[in-house]
Amino acid sequence: MQKLSFLTAGPSELYFTVEDHIRQSFKENIGSISHRSSQFQEIFAHTTAQLRQLMNIPASYHIVFTGSATEIWERVIQNLCAETSFHLVNGSFSKKFYECSLQLKRYGVKYKVADGEGFDVKDLAVPDASELLACTLNETSTGVTMPLQDLYALRQRYPEQLIAVDAVSIAPYSEIDFAQIDTLFFSVQKCFGLPAGLGVWVFNDRCVEKAEQLLQKDFSLGTYHTIPSLLKMAQKNQTPETPNVLGIYLLGKVAEDMNRRGIQNIRNEINYKAALMYQTFEQHPDFELFVKKEKFRSKTVIVANVKKGTAADVIGAAKKEGIIIGKGYGELADQQVRIANFPTHSKETFEKLADIINAY
Amino acid sequence: MQKLSFLTAGPSELYFTVEDHIRQSFKENIGSISHRSSQFQEIFAHTTAQLRQLMNIPASYHIVFTGSATEIWERVIQNLCAETSFHLVNGSFSKKFYECSLQLKRYGVKYKVADGEGFDVKDLAVPDASELLACTLNETSTGVTMPLQDLYALRQRYPEQLIAVDAVSIAPYSEIDFAQIDTLFFSVQKCFGLPAGLGVWVFNDRCVEKAEQLLQKDFSLGTYHTIPSLLKMAQKNQTPETPNVLGIYLLGKVAEDMNRRGIQNIRNEINYKAALMYQTFEQHPDFELFVKKEKFRSKTVIVANVKKGTAADVIGAAKKEGIIIGKGYGELADQQVRIANFPTHSKETFEKLADIINAY
Repeated sequence: MQKLSFLTAGPSELYFTVEDHIRQSFKENIGSISHRSSQFQEIFAHTTAQLRQLMNIPASYHIVFTGSATEIWERVIQNLCAETSFHLVNGSFSKKFYECSLQLKRYGVKYKVADGEGFDVKDLAVPDASELLACTLNETSTGVTMPLQDLYALRQRYPEQLIAVDAVSIAPYSEIDFAQIDTLFFSVQKCFGLPAGLGVWVFNDRCVEKAEQLLQKDFSLGTYHTIPSLLKMAQKNQTPETPNVLGIYLLGKVAEDMNRRGIQNIRNEINYKAALMYQTFEQHPDFELFVKKEKFRSKTVIVANVKKGTAADVIGAAKKEGIIIGKGYGELADQQVRIANFPTHSKETFEKLADIINAY
Repeated sequence: MQKLSFLTAGPSELYFTVEDHIRQSFKENIGSISHRSSQFQEIFAHTTAQLRQLMNIPASYHIVFTGSATEIWERVIQNLCAETSFHLVNGSFSKKFYECSLQLKRYGVKYKVADGEGFDVKDLAVPDASELLACTLNETSTGVTMPLQDLYALRQRYPEQLIAVDAVSIAPYSEIDFAQIDTLFFSVQKCFGLPAGLGVWVFNDRCVEKAEQLLQKDFSLGTYHTIPSLLKMAQKNQTPETPNVLGIYLLGKVAEDMNRRGIQNIRNEINYKAALMYQTFEQHPDFELFVKKEKFRSKTVIVANVKKGTAADVIGAAKKEGIIIGKGYGELADQQVRIANFPTHSKETFEKLADIINAY
């Protein structure tokens, strides 16, 4: 089978060191060790330490693991909202986060803009009753990012509310100041280039206090993956259930590799590749950028409208050269291409893709 | 690092084909493919078909995937119980299943016997209001099994209730008649010998109807992992979230390997190894079997009390020979050994372990 380059924004190309780390994991019996062993505790401690360094996560913020980021949408609402959550919605994933609130019988309020657009924080009218502001830093379905300054402006305007940040498909690219938010989460199959099946959830003590308040009011926070349960085990470098041990091990190894490479170098490379790709689409008569305002254009998920032919034509042309790119999401699937720009994707692959687009 | 044999009942020895399947998965880009691709749909279909064959799961029973069996405790209560669940409790894991009911604000009722004991079905007094009977087929903490005839007797006595079976640490050994139960679940790091991070949930249309009734009564069933949501996606050979794709792939491959070997051969080998180990402990003056009644003795998790020295002494003696066995669970940890007897554990390893015990 042909070895392909996956520039897709779902599961994506594995980080280039993953295969070697999996081979090493066999030698260390990682698939067999007990999740109550000291060996597992060392893995947990190593992974969280490497993530802290990579993403500059303060010591006062806790790091725990779940099965997916989708699970964390549910856990955020269950643990951090008794009645009202407020959601910034501009695509399919921010909409699903909002719908979680309704499915859990909370009063979810959304502020929605069209796909491809961002938010003007001064337009927001957050109901006073809102306990939680849910933001999607990078809308994977549309390639729209929320500039960090806008996120911080939200904190200025609404200091009482907990701010929850979905950082799927952008962490660890964003140089986020954690003091400006209360909780952040992501999955590992995007920028970290790992096999899917693991979510990472970071939260501060305001979140812990909120969860404890809900418990005292006799709310159900869930069972094994409540904030108190996750935190109690994390303080022992453990998890409530038998977790994806191999996934946690690999995440620590890849975060360590990224720390060695230097997060600024990784960011610079992503900036270069994004600039190349946006310029290529902008200059080509048969494409146009989907996100009109430059400040809302994601560096890690690049979306372009296909004006001649269909997305399938472009995808086919790239596939012939061994590069897999994605179609648009949902209704826009057939007339858009979506390209992931993650740390594992090389400059050379992007230069090749630019040539393919130029020749289209 | 020494290559060890893990006869532990948590994560355990990987099935002997797993490393090769992971190597093959790199060639097939399994870590990178989209969970919305036809390639993933083929993997989902293959894995469920192999499980159906291996465990004789009827076509009318649905198979879906979660992050863990611990998650399924929660999902079972959320989706299948409005008010009252009834739990057979005889160890730590059946107790945790019961506690899930309380944590989700249901009225959980338990019938508890001492650790190491089984249940006499005629002693049970299940409240009429019970909607769900929760059984643990193999209590991993104590090595007590529930004989299938007792499970079926439960169905005879309580035909109205949904019967939920925790088959962690015994599936696919048990030759279960699915018509006698409504739902069954397990995790893959026990008898299937896979890296942890995947739960398998089987349920019938009575469960689907119950979940839909709860929805109509305005209950929250959760968000992405509700029965209706899981089922809707499973009917397309997909999952609601980005799942543990590699885990689902590996489960299909290992189930296929087991089908090739023949489930009856696997059962016969497990019976042989269990007989050897129980006999070894029974004949040794410094050990005694923890489970007194033979019919309640698990074939897949064997527990013995250590009468001379401590569990650590026995574990140390085995480790010197490259075999890792477990200690007891919870309060009994220091005076018990627990030995997993799963399909990947060879007769030779068990014969070696019997020699080690005999020489103790």
